[in-house]
Amino acid sequence: MTAISPSFIDHLTAVHQQSRHVVPHSMSCAFLDGVLQLLFPSLSERSFSSRSEVEAYAMLLRADLEKILYRIEERLPGKPYEIADAYFEAVPDLQQQLNDDAAAIEAGDPAAVNVDEVIRTYPGFFAVAVYRLAHQFCRMGVPLLPRVLATYAHTKTGIDIHPRANIGARFCIDHGTGVVIGETAEIGDNVKVYQGVTLGALSVEKSMANVKRHPTIEDNVIIYAGATILGGKTVVGHSSIIGGNVWLTESVPPFARVYHHPQIRVSYYEDRANVLNFSI
Amino acid sequence: MTAISPSFIDHLTAVHQQSRHVVPHSMSCAFLDGVLQLLFPSLSERSFSSRSEVEAYAMLLRADLEKILYRIEERLPGKPYEIADAYFEAVPDLQQQLNDDAAAIEAGDPAAVNVDEVIRTYPGFFAVAVYRLAHQFCRMGVPLLPRVLATYAHTKTGIDIHPRANIGARFCIDHGTGVVIGETAEIGDNVKVYQGVTLGALSVEKSMANVKRHPTIEDNVIIYAGATILGGKTVVGHSSIIGGNVWLTESVPPFARVYHHPQIRVSYYEDRANVLNFSI
Amino acid sequence: MTAISPSFIDHLTAVHQQSRHVVPHSMSCAFLDGVLQLLFPSLSERSFSSRSEVEAYAMLLRADLEKILYRIEERLPGKPYEIADAYFEAVPDLQQQLNDDAAAIEAGDPAAVNVDEVIRTYPGFFAVAVYRLAHQFCRMGVPLLPRVLATYAHTKTGIDIHPRANIGARFCIDHGTGVVIGETAEIGDNVKVYQGVTLGALSVEKSMANVKRHPTIEDNVIIYAGATILGGKTVVGHSSIIGGNVWLTESVPPFARVYHHPQIRVSYYEDRANVLNFSI
Repeated sequence: MTAISPSFIDHLTAVHQQSRHVVPHSMSCAFLDGVLQLLFPSLSERSFSSRSEVEAYAMLLRADLEKILYRIEERLPGKPYEIADAYFEAVPDLQQQLNDDAAAIEAGDPAAVNVDEVIRTYPGFFAVAVYRLAHQFCRMGVPLLPRVLATYAHTKTGIDIHPRANIGARFCIDHGTGVVIGETAEIGDNVKVYQGVTLGALSVEKSMANVKRHPTIEDNVIIYAGATILGGKTVVGHSSIIGGNVWLTESVPPFARVYHHPQIRVSYYEDRANVLNFSI
Repeated sequence: MTAISPSFIDHLTAVHQQSRHVVPHSMSCAFLDGVLQLLFPSLSERSFSSRSEVEAYAMLLRADLEKILYRIEERLPGKPYEIADAYFEAVPDLQQQLNDDAAAIEAGDPAAVNVDEVIRTYPGFFAVAVYRLAHQFCRMGVPLLPRVLATYAHTKTGIDIHPRANIGARFCIDHGTGVVIGETAEIGDNVKVYQGVTLGALSVEKSMANVKRHPTIEDNVIIYAGATILGGKTVVGHSSIIGGNVWLTESVPPFARVYHHPQIRVSYYEDRANVLNFSI
Repeated sequence: MTAISPSFIDHLTAVHQQSRHVVPHSMSCAFLDGVLQLLFPSLSERSFSSRSEVEAYAMLLRADLEKILYRIEERLPGKPYEIADAYFEAVPDLQQQLNDDAAAIEAGDPAAVNVDEVIRTYPGFFAVAVYRLAHQFCRMGVPLLPRVLATYAHTKTGIDIHPRANIGARFCIDHGTGVVIGETAEIGDNVKVYQGVTLGALSVEKSMANVKRHPTIEDNVIIYAGATILGGKTVVGHSSIIGGNVWLTESVPPFARVYHHPQIRVSYYEDRANVLNFSI
C-alpha cells in the first residue's frame, strides 16, 4: 500500500516506542504563551473580565506545567507538583523584573512611543521575557524545557540566549536579530545590546563543557550592533561602550570606549553600464 | 488551590482590568494575511472561484479592519469606518507597488525562476509587502497597529523595517536576515539591499525622538551584505554601490563605490591535531 | 457595500482565476512537519503506539505528497504517484544522513547535553533537516516546492540554505541566525558553520543564472561566525579554519588558517555624563 518498505516501518516503530513520554513542543510553547498572557495584557489574546477568571486561568497554567513535568519526571530533582508550586511562587518576581526591562527599553529608545508598545511589539522584550521564564527552570534544575523555550524565542525573534546565561536587571536588546549569548556568559545590570551582537566562546571544544567559555559584561555597558566579544576570561569593565562591529577577545577596564576602525576605499565612476558589481 | 498568592491574583486582575480594548495580535495578523491572500493568489490558502467570493472576502476584511480600529477608537484621527474605507481605497495602488517590487526582485536575482516564486517564497518580498501595508496606516495616523504588523514581518523574515521609514518604488531585499531600517530613513527608487544591512542611528538618545536619525539613500543604490550606514545627516548619493561589510558614517556623492578593505592573515598547519581552534 | 471599487474586484477576480492549482503553503509545510514527526519522535506532536499507526501515518503522508504534486503536475518530470513513490524510497537514507548530522553537532558542541536535545531544539539541525528533504525534491526535478520548504526553514531559524546547494555528510550549523548558503555552493563532508556566515556570489547579475557563482568548501573546514566567502571560483581547501568576520574572495589551500585582523581603538573616560554615545 505504501512505498515505504516494511523493514523501515519496523525501524520507525521501534524508534517511536523507545521515545514515549516526549513533551510535544506545542505543549511547552502554549504554557509559555499562557504565562505571558497572564502577566501582560498587551500580549494577551483574551480579555480577563473578573478575578475568578484570572485565578482559573492561573490554576490551569499550573496544571499544564505539572503535566509537562510528569512527562520528564525521572529526570527532575523533585516531585512535579512541588516544582510547579515553586515555579509559580517565583512568577511575581519575574513579572517585576520584566516590567523593569520594558521600562528600561522604553526609556532608552527614541523610536518607542510607550511601555505598552515595547511589551507588545519589541522582539528584544519578548526574547528577554522568555529568557527569564526559562532561566527560572534552569535554576530549579529542570532539564530540556528551558532550551525548548529558548528555541521558541529564537524562532520568533532571531535572538539566541542560552537559558543558563546569567543576566542582571534592566537588560535591553534593540532589534536583536542575530544576537547570540552563550551558556556561561555573565551580564550585569543596565546592559544594552543591539542586533548582531555575539557574546561567544573563543574556542569551541567539547571538552570545555564545564568551563566558563563566554565573557563577563559588567554593569552599565552598551554594546552596539554587530560587535563580537569572545572568551571566558574576557571582562568588559563597567560603564564601557563597545562600538558597532568591534571584535574583542581581551578584557577592557571600566569606562573604556572601544571603536571599530573601519577600513574602506572609495572610488567613483560616471557610467554605471561600464562597471561590474563587485561583491555580494 | 493554586500556588499563586491571592494578592498576586488581585494584582493581575487589576492589571488586566486597566487594559480592556486591547487588540489581540492574532486579529491584526489575520487581517494582514487576509489582505495578502486577496492581493496575491500565490500567498493564498484558499482558491477564489467566483467574483462574488472575492467581493465577499474583501468585505469581510474591511469589517475586520473596522473591528480592530474600534478597539483603539479614542486614539484615531477619524471614525473607524472612515479610516477603513480610506485604507481600502489605497489598496489597489499598494498592490501595484508590490507587483513592481516583485518584478524588480525577479529581474535582478539569478536564483529567481519567475515572479510567482518571488512572491511565494522570498522573505524580502514578504517584508516589503508588510512594510507598504503598515506604512499606509502610518500615513493615515493609525497608532500601534503598524508596529504590530512590522513585528509580525520581523518574526517571519528576520527583517526589521520601521513602518514610518520612507521607501521608494521597486525596493529589493535579498535573503534579508538581520536587515534593520530605522524610523527616519529615507530610501529612493530602485534601491537594492542584501542581508545584514543596517540603516541606523549614529547615536541613540531618547531626546532625539523627533530628529532625523537615520540615513538617506538616493535612487539606484546597491548595498551589499552586512554593510552598516549610520546617521541622520548621512546621504548616499544616487547610483552608488556600497560593498559588503562597509561601515559608513559620512555622506558619499553620486556614483560612489565604497569597498570594505578586509584585513586578514593567513597561515598554514599540517597536523590539525596539534592546533587549537582559535575563535568562535 | 464595500469601499473597494467594482473594477478592482473585477481585477482581483481575474488574477485569482488565472492562478488555480496553487499549492497552499500550509499544505507543503504540514507535509514537511509530518515527515519530520515520522522520522524523529523528538520533533513529534503525537506518540505512535503501534506499528499499524506508524504505517498509516506514513501512507497518509505519501497521499498528501501526491496531492501536492498533482497541483503542479504539468511542470513535473513524471507522474505524481511515481515521484511520490520514489521520494519515499529515498526517505530511509535521508533519515540516516540526518542522524549523522545530529550526532556530529552533539559531538562538537560543549553546550549540547545529548543528541535528543540537538534534534529537538537546535535551529541548525532543523535547517539542515529541511535542506536535505527539500534537496531530494530538487534532485528529482520537482519545481517550486523545494524553495517553499526552504522559506519555511528560514522563517523558523533565520538560516537561508538554497535547496539546490550541494552539502556533504555530517554538516553542522550552530546558532545559525543569518547564515546564507547560495544556490551553487559546494560543501564537503564534516564542515561546520556558525551564525552569520555567508557563502555568496562575488557579483549578482541576472545573466549568471546558470554559472557557478558560490564557493566550494572542501572536507573538514570550520567557518566561524560572521565570515563571508564569495565567488564561484573560490575554493577553501580541506581542513582549513576560517576565523570569525573574515572576508574572503580568493581560494586558500588545504590546512589554511585565515584570521580576521581587527582594527580597534580604545580610549577611556571617567565621567559618562560628559560623553556622547557614538555609534549604533
